[in-house]
Amino acid sequence: MSTSTTDTTQKHQATLDAAVEALHGRTFFAAFPENPSPEIYGADADKEGRASFKAHRDQRFTELQQGESAGWAGQEESPYEQASLGIEYPYYKPETLVQNAQEVFGQWRKLKPADRAALLTETLEGMKDRFFEIAYATMHTTGQAYMMSFQASGPHAADRALEAIAAGYEEQTRFPEETRWEKPMGKYNITLHKTWRAVPKGVALVIGCSTFPTWNTVPGMYASLVTGNPVIIKPHPKAVLPIAIVVAEVQKVLVAHGLDPRICQLAVDANDHLIAKELAENPAVKLIDYTGGSAFGEYIEGLKGKTVFTEKTGVNSIILDSCDDLDKVAQNLAFSVSLYSGQMCTAPQNFFIPEGGVKVAGELVPYEDVVQKLAAAVTSLAQNPKAGPHVLGAIQSATTQERVRDLALEGSRSVLAHGTVDNPVFQNARTCSTSIHEVESSRVEQFSQELFGPIMLVIKTRDTQESIRLAADLAREHGAISCGAYTTDSAVKEQIMDEMSLAGTPVSFNLTGGIYVNQNAGFSDFHVTGGNPAGNASFTNPEFVIKRFTWVGFREPIA
Amino acid sequence: MSTSTTDTTQKHQATLDAAVEALHGRTFFAAFPENPSPEIYGADADKEGRASFKAHRDQRFTELQQGESAGWAGQEESPYEQASLGIEYPYYKPETLVQNAQEVFGQWRKLKPADRAALLTETLEGMKDRFFEIAYATMHTTGQAYMMSFQASGPHAADRALEAIAAGYEEQTRFPEETRWEKPMGKYNITLHKTWRAVPKGVALVIGCSTFPTWNTVPGMYASLVTGNPVIIKPHPKAVLPIAIVVAEVQKVLVAHGLDPRICQLAVDANDHLIAKELAENPAVKLIDYTGGSAFGEYIEGLKGKTVFTEKTGVNSIILDSCDDLDKVAQNLAFSVSLYSGQMCTAPQNFFIPEGGVKVAGELVPYEDVVQKLAAAVTSLAQNPKAGPHVLGAIQSATTQERVRDLALEGSRSVLAHGTVDNPVFQNARTCSTSIHEVESSRVEQFSQELFGPIMLVIKTRDTQESIRLAADLAREHGAISCGAYTTDSAVKEQIMDEMSLAGTPVSFNLTGGIYVNQNAGFSDFHVTGGNPAGNASFTNPEFVIKRFTWVGFREPIA
Repeated sequence: MSTSTTDTTQKHQATLDAAVEALHGRTFFAAFPENPSPEIYGADADKEGRASFKAHRDQRFTELQQGESAGWAGQEESPYEQASLGIEYPYYKPETLVQNAQEVFGQWRKLKPADRAALLTETLEGMKDRFFEIAYATMHTTGQAYMMSFQASGPHAADRALEAIAAGYEEQTRFPEETRWEKPMGKYNITLHKTWRAVPKGVALVIGCSTFPTWNTVPGMYASLVTGNPVIIKPHPKAVLPIAIVVAEVQKVLVAHGLDPRICQLAVDANDHLIAKELAENPAVKLIDYTGGSAFGEYIEGLKGKTVFTEKTGVNSIILDSCDDLDKVAQNLAFSVSLYSGQMCTAPQNFFIPEGGVKVAGELVPYEDVVQKLAAAVTSLAQNPKAGPHVLGAIQSATTQERVRDLALEGSRSVLAHGTVDNPVFQNARTCSTSIHEVESSRVEQFSQELFGPIMLVIKTRDTQESIRLAADLAREHGAISCGAYTTDSAVKEQIMDEMSLAGTPVSFNLTGGIYVNQNAGFSDFHVTGGNPAGNASFTNPEFVIKRFTWVGFREPIA
Repeated sequence: MSTSTTDTTQKHQATLDAAVEALHGRTFFAAFPENPSPEIYGADADKEGRASFKAHRDQRFTELQQGESAGWAGQEESPYEQASLGIEYPYYKPETLVQNAQEVFGQWRKLKPADRAALLTETLEGMKDRFFEIAYATMHTTGQAYMMSFQASGPHAADRALEAIAAGYEEQTRFPEETRWEKPMGKYNITLHKTWRAVPKGVALVIGCSTFPTWNTVPGMYASLVTGNPVIIKPHPKAVLPIAIVVAEVQKVLVAHGLDPRICQLAVDANDHLIAKELAENPAVKLIDYTGGSAFGEYIEGLKGKTVFTEKTGVNSIILDSCDDLDKVAQNLAFSVSLYSGQMCTAPQNFFIPEGGVKVAGELVPYEDVVQKLAAAVTSLAQNPKAGPHVLGAIQSATTQERVRDLALEGSRSVLAHGTVDNPVFQNARTCSTSIHEVESSRVEQFSQELFGPIMLVIKTRDTQESIRLAADLAREHGAISCGAYTTDSAVKEQIMDEMSLAGTPVSFNLTGGIYVNQNAGFSDFHVTGGNPAGNASFTNPEFVIKRFTWVGFREPIA
């Protein structure tokens, strides 16, 4: 027996309306609480989530309802244990997945946008019930610490998904489905009955990354789905479980409403070969969302006949000009570079500091003092047993750890060597504290690429003018996803806003306390809006959804 | 003394609000009357417009205010006289034009969207005062008949421009400029002051075509301008005057408001070389609107780092299944293929007729009878001295005339040979009546490309199912901008809507009387929305404007 789509649509209308309103208010809005407290999620939620995660280990994942598989595959390892999770997922040939998607396209696209939006909102309830399970799955694939694993993969991701659903719903219902068009011709009128359809583009593909398996996947996934496109989710082979759970929940809701679960499919790589290219190049695939490195991202962007949304790499800057309290600034920045060991797309990398020092409450603090204060704050955080492991987490990939270890920047000065971060629970965790290198401002090639991981570069500039110029040039030419600036001078602030706006980079000013440049709030902060080479994912402005469908109109005279 | 921008903004707010409302109502709306009657435009408007046009002939066009030129150039010829217009325009090197645009970018982008929208609306008043002059300029460059020259280049173009202004204004003001973001953290709140800017992408280029020099140019031109991008208009070298007048009017308003006229520049080709490629490839050019042939359009689309809007060629179909009155249908279709001698992007080319005939008021009319009825209607229109010349106009380019003359489709049957159309005023006009060829449905290669000009192909199909399949396949694979269908069967109608919607092609059903498949109404009919290879100009849905700017946000704690 299937659940009525009409009932589901009515059930979620208020949520959708509130989400659309939030998109335009851009004040704080969250449909899913980020606090994993028992008061909110239930006394046993955490324990049950952990147990559910453990139950997946060394088992086949059998929750998917997308037909018989061609085999089983799984390559996940826990960065906390440096050991395999032992989970296998059904493997399907790329052409099977695309053909499945084509078969169910008609069924999905013929639903009204409001019905699709409601069904998809319903799936987020299923996801919410598994936030803790997803959190542990995220920890043990990405290396994120527990709190980030819960928040980023759970409520924050679900809010970003709801944001995409709401934006897609709004854009598809912004123009009338039909109208009577009556043109006065003098002695008579010409009258036409006109109708319009928002026509989805076709099969959609979402290629996930290893560090944020749900947060970076669900926006494109839900944006494509709400606009009527069947979607194939191709997670990073090292971070499958968190999004596999979400896909299973989507399939459950589809089946409950009498729809084909293959409207949303999971596509895992085979153990011996990757399938992203084969999927992406299939002519039936019209939409691709991609998160990951720039080289593969540019290959995706270069494919003909596809609408592509990317979040690639960027070089994020901090501009230090002046502030009121340097200690607070240093603590805030130390947290930002250390959070998840610098493995966030929004983590700052390049710190531009004037050689003349930073004006603090009216007095100049010499350059070297600023550098040492930053280094001390970084060290203090990493070595604090109550904070360090919970902020830095673990390193997702051995490659990242090697990058930190092997980094050689000719002519640079090592300000702080990397170290390990003792983890109270996981003795074998792959950890790495932040290293700091001072590089010459003339050696742009050393700081013009993303050094993914816990690496902080300090660049001594002639003055703030040079800092701004370098930060803006880097963003424009190499991409940037975030920028932090500290200044008490309103003219400097306006200049930074103007120059970074032309480089398409959002700027956080004078952050201290419990808010960080890395953080990015659904329903308020636009994310990667396309103004520089870092990508055009555009969570979530109208562009993120309207490029997924086409308006087509029909007209006929009314007698 | 400069006019106050604030006054201008207030002056046009009501017009803008009405235009935004019309965009969403999609009922009939026109800010500029299409009727060239003396009651509306003044007793002497036509006479004065004709005199103004004549005064341009054999003169240099000196109205532009974009600095000293590097020379003079002009290549226009009247299709009605097959003689040079003798008009020369100032020529500027491409790098000069781009540098000019970069210099004035700051000034233009820093205006508020509402101010830009109002200034641009003001320019349409200047354009309106010159509608008749533009009409004669259009006649004698494109070969359009008088009525189309007036309507398409004057009021319809101005309405399309206003539509782009309104859409751009709406999209840039859909999100707040600032907000107070307050996040509850349990014991305290984190409060940020957030601001956002719609950041224009940079220098914009609009490449015009020879047949609709204002209608196809002003949407992209105004869409780029309203979103803060300085624009360079590169008209087709054979159709400069109509848009030169519009650019001059824009520059007048800019100057009157104390702004640099180089915010909107005209870029004519040199007499000995074309400059479109050099302009398009300039790295500072970020936005390109292009109307014209597919080969150059695909080159433009392939340029890296540009946001591109194109209107290329398409193959438009008519599907004949059933109707109530075949005579009325034949008259309507004869008008559609003959209007401006088939030189419209929306003109139908391929007529799919079932071999079993067309059901007319319940009775089957044999295939050949239908074909002959269409041919008779086409002949009757071309030979009617009171209608023929005023509908068919003249042929813009000798190449088009040669295409009709030399067309050889192996194995096809000539149903109707082309002829001339006597023009009562211009004995030397380059004219050509519509030719009709019957081609085999199996010879898809013969009807899968646009045969620009007065060429009608009749394709005998097994049945309506084959007609629909061929029309949809052609649109999906080769592009289409319009489709006409005649059916009294609601299931067939729904099937056509569904299949053509997947091919991204709007369909007009059962048109008879004074409304034609070629016509496309501002504020109501979406035009070339990107669903097939004909292009993605998208007049005017949100995509047409939002891809011209980037959202960038700024945030700072509130103490």
